[in-house]
Amino acid sequence: MRCSFSKTFIVAVAVAVLPHLPARAADALPSWNDGAAKRAIVAFVEKVAKPGTPDFVEPAKRIAVFDNDGTLWSEQPMYVQLAFLFDRVRALAPQHPEWKDKQPYKAALEGDLKALGETGMRGLTELTAATHAGMSAEEFEEIVTQWLATARHPKFDRPYTELVYQPMLELMSYLRYNGFKTFIVSGGGIDFIRPWAEKTYGIPPEQVVGSSIEVKYETKDGESTLVRLPELRFVDDKAGKPVGIHFHIGRRPIAAFGNSDGDLEMLAYTTAGSGLRFGLLVRHDDSEREYAYDRDSLFGKLDKALDEAKARGWTVVDMKRDWKTVFPPEQGALR
Amino acid sequence: MRCSFSKTFIVAVAVAVLPHLPARAADALPSWNDGAAKRAIVAFVEKVAKPGTPDFVEPAKRIAVFDNDGTLWSEQPMYVQLAFLFDRVRALAPQHPEWKDKQPYKAALEGDLKALGETGMRGLTELTAATHAGMSAEEFEEIVTQWLATARHPKFDRPYTELVYQPMLELMSYLRYNGFKTFIVSGGGIDFIRPWAEKTYGIPPEQVVGSSIEVKYETKDGESTLVRLPELRFVDDKAGKPVGIHFHIGRRPIAAFGNSDGDLEMLAYTTAGSGLRFGLLVRHDDSEREYAYDRDSLFGKLDKALDEAKARGWTVVDMKRDWKTVFPPEQGALR
Repeated sequence: MRCSFSKTFIVAVAVAVLPHLPARAADALPSWNDGAAKRAIVAFVEKVAKPGTPDFVEPAKRIAVFDNDGTLWSEQPMYVQLAFLFDRVRALAPQHPEWKDKQPYKAALEGDLKALGETGMRGLTELTAATHAGMSAEEFEEIVTQWLATARHPKFDRPYTELVYQPMLELMSYLRYNGFKTFIVSGGGIDFIRPWAEKTYGIPPEQVVGSSIEVKYETKDGESTLVRLPELRFVDDKAGKPVGIHFHIGRRPIAAFGNSDGDLEMLAYTTAGSGLRFGLLVRHDDSEREYAYDRDSLFGKLDKALDEAKARGWTVVDMKRDWKTVFPPEQGALR
Repeated sequence: MRCSFSKTFIVAVAVAVLPHLPARAADALPSWNDGAAKRAIVAFVEKVAKPGTPDFVEPAKRIAVFDNDGTLWSEQPMYVQLAFLFDRVRALAPQHPEWKDKQPYKAALEGDLKALGETGMRGLTELTAATHAGMSAEEFEEIVTQWLATARHPKFDRPYTELVYQPMLELMSYLRYNGFKTFIVSGGGIDFIRPWAEKTYGIPPEQVVGSSIEVKYETKDGESTLVRLPELRFVDDKAGKPVGIHFHIGRRPIAAFGNSDGDLEMLAYTTAGSGLRFGLLVRHDDSEREYAYDRDSLFGKLDKALDEAKARGWTVVDMKRDWKTVFPPEQGALR
């Protein structure tokens, strides 16, 4: 008799079965140079994913958390959300003629980071209230989406969502392929990240943790909606990150990825748990392909966490040495 | 030639492929009587899960939210968390001799709901602070787990985690099988529900939304931990439910399940979105197998939401009529 399994059937079987096989690291992380960082990642993942060994972790507990700014995408010459905020102030300025002579608006209109810095946290909170509140959750999502569709990075002249780190995209896929659930835990705004995180990183809105302003439930003309209020709700930075993780995820992650002192507590909290743990810091030392900055940077300062990394055995990625490529190919180049 | 596919291979293929086929409702909801409620559920699920039709919803957007008390498990003669709170007051009373003459502690020690009610929200907040704070997140988890292992329901003399509704367990499985992601959105404490929700409902900690008290990140002797503080953080009830959903899930659900006026805003918010939506209320009218209560109940009052259900086309489940069985078989009976 002839075998009755068709080619289509074999393909269907392969499609169904293949995702359940472990990814081979050699293929899964092509943008990482072979070195200590890549080897540490692969060793950790293979250990926790191997049943019947002392380091095995059941899939439900394979939680990995990622900082966003400077860890998954570029945060220089300023946080992307700050560029967004400046553009929002400019867009709204015609309705507020008094802004051009009044801080912190004047600093925002002129893109003057030094003057803005002098207004402190209060200035930033006032600008956030003026630009991020007063509309529905859906309207804000649309504003963010529209802005990202046209805004371009001043140095690379590419959309911000293309300035994500290719090696980190591969790392997240590799982790998910090995049963991990990946979360963003960002000091940036939760509602600023959610509109594009799924398409860009494969991370759905419910797996984004971030800072927030209050929202209020309202019904109007039979419509149920959430209105954004000009009040700070939660700052998901430094010691706030483990708190955000607790309320949002509800269990201690086993792997944490960051790049600055804002991630120190998240890495400490993650790696202090029992069993095998993994902490990693991205160090920006590549002024040619991206930026070089650490201890003295205005954005993404990496100082205390870099010292702690040695003491605590966290992996430090030197971008120049460890990454074969930094950004994915331009969208145009793929066509 | 003989066909080279072994029986083992065929079984492996079946195991890999079968989960991707839609569940047949007739098998998936055996504890539901054939009637309007079951038919409405099945019609909704089949429509949103069928590609190429106008009502199709992509899997990532198939978010279903469930209230807990009175929707997934019994909330009479009082909320389970209140029984826990009373037992905690009793356990801590020897260290606080003054409690026996002082409200709200006296009411808790005597299980006097009327006297407790007279102390209002302030009394309840004080009791929560005294019993739910002052320990680490891990310690509280352990306290809840230990309590549930021994506490028994006063009427049914069974562990509380066995007094979950079998038809709702089947419904959650049926939804997940059809690509839905299921969340609990409870007025109860997020940290009271998480320790047992995964085992009991198949819902992991990161898919539990609830009320909370503050926690603070602390390091002590090189240990990183979260300490529970006696301050209310968020009340996930009534208009708080859509807010909790926004911050935790980040998109409007397409199906919501509740049983009381505390769920009204959640159902209104869910069913007001565009595209096909589903709202369902469980009505407790079964004094024989469970309890009968609605408009005048101290716990789980169902009044305004019941009126709204008619106007808005929400499905109302009458427990007596629609459920073949209420609770799963006793654990002992399974052995």
